[in-house]
Amino acid sequence: MNSKFVYDIPTKIYFGENQLKNLGKELSKYGKRVLLTYGGGSIKKNGLYDKVVEEIKNANLELFELSGIEPNPRVSSVNEGANICKKENIDVLLAVGGGSVIDCTKFIGAATYYNGDAWDISLGKVPVEKCLPIITVLTLAATGSEMDTGGVISNPKTKDKRGISFPVMRPKVSFLDPTNTYSVSKYQTACGSADILSHIIEVYFNLNTDLYMLDKVMEGLMKTVIKYAPIAIKEPNNYEARANLMWTSSWAINGFVNGGKRQAWSVHCIEHELSAYYDITHGLGLAILTPRWMEYVLDENTVKRFYQFGINVFDIDKSLPEMEVAKKSIEKLKDFFFETLELQSTLTKINIDKTNFKVMSEKAEILGNTKYAFKPINAIDIENILKMCL
Amino acid sequence: MNSKFVYDIPTKIYFGENQLKNLGKELSKYGKRVLLTYGGGSIKKNGLYDKVVEEIKNANLELFELSGIEPNPRVSSVNEGANICKKENIDVLLAVGGGSVIDCTKFIGAATYYNGDAWDISLGKVPVEKCLPIITVLTLAATGSEMDTGGVISNPKTKDKRGISFPVMRPKVSFLDPTNTYSVSKYQTACGSADILSHIIEVYFNLNTDLYMLDKVMEGLMKTVIKYAPIAIKEPNNYEARANLMWTSSWAINGFVNGGKRQAWSVHCIEHELSAYYDITHGLGLAILTPRWMEYVLDENTVKRFYQFGINVFDIDKSLPEMEVAKKSIEKLKDFFFETLELQSTLTKINIDKTNFKVMSEKAEILGNTKYAFKPINAIDIENILKMCL
Repeated sequence: MNSKFVYDIPTKIYFGENQLKNLGKELSKYGKRVLLTYGGGSIKKNGLYDKVVEEIKNANLELFELSGIEPNPRVSSVNEGANICKKENIDVLLAVGGGSVIDCTKFIGAATYYNGDAWDISLGKVPVEKCLPIITVLTLAATGSEMDTGGVISNPKTKDKRGISFPVMRPKVSFLDPTNTYSVSKYQTACGSADILSHIIEVYFNLNTDLYMLDKVMEGLMKTVIKYAPIAIKEPNNYEARANLMWTSSWAINGFVNGGKRQAWSVHCIEHELSAYYDITHGLGLAILTPRWMEYVLDENTVKRFYQFGINVFDIDKSLPEMEVAKKSIEKLKDFFFETLELQSTLTKINIDKTNFKVMSEKAEILGNTKYAFKPINAIDIENILKMCL
Repeated sequence: MNSKFVYDIPTKIYFGENQLKNLGKELSKYGKRVLLTYGGGSIKKNGLYDKVVEEIKNANLELFELSGIEPNPRVSSVNEGANICKKENIDVLLAVGGGSVIDCTKFIGAATYYNGDAWDISLGKVPVEKCLPIITVLTLAATGSEMDTGGVISNPKTKDKRGISFPVMRPKVSFLDPTNTYSVSKYQTACGSADILSHIIEVYFNLNTDLYMLDKVMEGLMKTVIKYAPIAIKEPNNYEARANLMWTSSWAINGFVNGGKRQAWSVHCIEHELSAYYDITHGLGLAILTPRWMEYVLDENTVKRFYQFGINVFDIDKSLPEMEVAKKSIEKLKDFFFETLELQSTLTKINIDKTNFKVMSEKAEILGNTKYAFKPINAIDIENILKMCL
């Protein structure tokens, strides 16, 4: 299939230390009234909050705040933020945090232009054509939300988690300072790394492989995660490791590697149900699911892709039979997630049983775009994959 | 050294066939009066000119033209174009061609805001703070000018060739249709591929290797050129080959792979003198020079980088001694340029002797930024390298 796509990724990135001095200048391009959004307050402990506020004050901007945005952020936070934006005539949003804070802020930016419950937006009832400009200061290498068009939001009442993606939601500017991730825990570093790797895997495992160039880029990004995640876990203040993970997180999902390929993101569809029902960390869910999904979809049709993955990402001996390399590559990935990153290896270990598998699988089939998948899967397949994770 | 940089590459790309229907819409964003720039008329033979003009007419835009832009474009063309822009109040420039046409158009865009000889701009006497908006339709995978901030211009009177780079000169939108390169000759395909490879080599051979992630991307881009250039030469209408070369040409030099590394581009400095004195194709000059430059700078300090190049780009056995891998990698590169791509292997073969080597070397030392080079070189070194090319 001849590659065809529109590439349009204008987010400006300030990468490295001491770049925050440009924050006031960048915010001022969009107006005077800034809503600062953040999570549970870790940025107050590590001093980042004070630095950000100082830059805002120095630029003579008016500061408003929304704090307490949850991991797996909730639609209630979106509605709260949108109300502030409407009431206070906010000009620009400043998200300081990881993917949850940035995702929530994207929904706030969109919901500001909608009169109604923000949940309608996540259900796709309302197309997002306008969004307040968003600037981010990233504190966790994981979701890639700092440079992409997507966001995911949860509704605890209905146990739903929904993702949307619109170009206007892409951040205008993001500040990526690897030292802002030094304080990220071993566990969250592991989950973030699993998330990055999963984003690449979801794109890489595709039957359309016309743009070899992008395959090579993806293999390089995967090798980067595999090389540096263990280093960042052992040495939290290793700049090189944190920098490589951070910049890889952005490029894993900003759209560059897609190259016009039709996509399904099968594992993400299933994981969103896990997080919706059990509020687990997204990266942990992906780590448990991905190797089982791989085992389930590996067959004579798909084996070539696994072979490429095995020899180019895990340096498995290319002279071995394709199926052997494929199986070894899945074992290598399990070793990486469960031995090297020390993530829990089964749903059972995190106290999730099969109680809700049927309803979760049915939801995932409906929300997933599985007819374009690397290997199409339906609700029964999804339930089987979930059972393999017990 | 801790990586620090600003990433800001907002060029929008329409990649693939039948994207020109978006041309009128994109031009209209910048105004009504369009100056179409192109070269010797090959776009009239292959039908691209008619397609472009039709889109401009359909969008009710006013069309002006500058044709005859030279390979190694000349400052006289820049002055001619800038005069049209001033006289006709041009709003937007549309470059249809390869790197020469696009480079010349960048200088026209800048010179429109300067009252004087455009050569002053190329000498760096005038900083470029304003430039007319530029849209490009690419017809040759080579220079990467379609997505970068640079341009190179020649002054035949003084035998000078000068390059500049300013953010405002980056194209706003580029149309990359691989089928527009089907008619590129074997020789120009070979020279373009050598140019792409050289852009990556100039960045890759750097003592700062902190962003492993970008090393992996560069190795992937180099492997792509090595895989697809021979296919494009044998099968000019092979979409996959043309697409991989085209998208790689943009990413080789748009700035992404730099990652804040200090750079010198030693080989380009020398080649610009060759093209200035003998008007040879840039890519051919780079192909002849690069392996000799490599042989000259290979030593105990630089060998590790050559080793990485050898094992990751040419798949040389990694268990061999570093110096052996390094030397083999240079031989492999020579084979690629001179056997696979069938480019002339010496300056003697293209009727260049040592007559001007001394003055060229002195100019190259002054214009080059060689104190930041992978291995610093001076005029004597440059003359030695040129002699190795005889």
